[in-house]
Amino acid sequence: MNLPSKHLEEAVEQLSSLPGIGKKTALRLILNILNRTEEEVEKFSYSFLKMKQNVQNCKICKNVTDFEICFICSNPKRDASIICIVEDIRDILAIEATQSYNGLYHVLGGIISPMDGVGPKDLNIDSLLSRIETSKPDEIIFALSATMEGDTTNFYLFKKLNNSNIKITTLSRGVSIGAELQYADELTLGRSLIQRQLFNQ
Amino acid sequence: MNLPSKHLEEAVEQLSSLPGIGKKTALRLILNILNRTEEEVEKFSYSFLKMKQNVQNCKICKNVTDFEICFICSNPKRDASIICIVEDIRDILAIEATQSYNGLYHVLGGIISPMDGVGPKDLNIDSLLSRIETSKPDEIIFALSATMEGDTTNFYLFKKLNNSNIKITTLSRGVSIGAELQYADELTLGRSLIQRQLFNQ
Repeated sequence: MNLPSKHLEEAVEQLSSLPGIGKKTALRLILNILNRTEEEVEKFSYSFLKMKQNVQNCKICKNVTDFEICFICSNPKRDASIICIVEDIRDILAIEATQSYNGLYHVLGGIISPMDGVGPKDLNIDSLLSRIETSKPDEIIFALSATMEGDTTNFYLFKKLNNSNIKITTLSRGVSIGAELQYADELTLGRSLIQRQLFNQ
Repeated sequence: MNLPSKHLEEAVEQLSSLPGIGKKTALRLILNILNRTEEEVEKFSYSFLKMKQNVQNCKICKNVTDFEICFICSNPKRDASIICIVEDIRDILAIEATQSYNGLYHVLGGIISPMDGVGPKDLNIDSLLSRIETSKPDEIIFALSATMEGDTTNFYLFKKLNNSNIKITTLSRGVSIGAELQYADELTLGRSLIQRQLFNQ
């Protein structure tokens, strides 16, 4: 795109680096930003930098948080004997919205996907294993997407945890196979949490 | 959306202020930004602020530019006797891509749309009239969208310019090149029949 301003071009370039945002969409959005006051644009711009500089991963569960320990891990009312393993924080939001779960989480930060070059070493698996070693939970829930990659990750984790005496469960397949977790409706997701099944049955 | 970090929430809030970006999409994009290095996020953030602080409107045609006068107005090879009136800079990009026009432009910055609260005073019409007064072009081309609002704006400008001896033209409307006749809408097909051209011109 041959834009009449280098600064405009750079802004379009940056915005279209986001997944799913093409050059034409980016230009439309950038012209909207350009019509705002300088104060508004300042607030817009700094929001991303402030986020990057301040947001950290919870030392326990790797959820994003403004503090060392996230508000779920630091909540004494949550049941610390259950750990629910999810792919990213959007899955936590989806599960929290069901109001059917009171345990803790562990965010893997992705799932094993050789096609995308994501192996076990790229995920928060070591921290999960040492966390389980220390805190000795009664139950681990696998709550990954019902896809090939999710299943692969489930099996990898299952093999790693098989020798321990922890009950390993997985969400019941009320969630449609092939669908991503975060798009499941709350009722289905809630039901499949309640009806979770022993993984090795 | 009840996010586990205030900074994350603010970034999602800001990104979803863009037209067509909902909260869920914004969160997906923000998590992508969060996975980048601080240097990358800095570059991303500052691109918008730098643009706002440096991009200005060309003093002549109101096109966006990094300088006082845009590269089209300052190009001595362009035909200054024709001014093409467009809605925004994306229309300039579309017309320039045709390589069929060598005149100048004037960017209105919108079209008259009472439903959206946009009146003639909100557009670059005064600057257009005084520009025409001074530079006395031979021809004005109306190149606004073929919608109710575009037509309204055309008529408003036509009334304002009617007393001058300038030739006023508008883009021809008709069946798109490469389109099959049977799929053209009735209004367009009717218009292209009425405005039929001599075949050997």
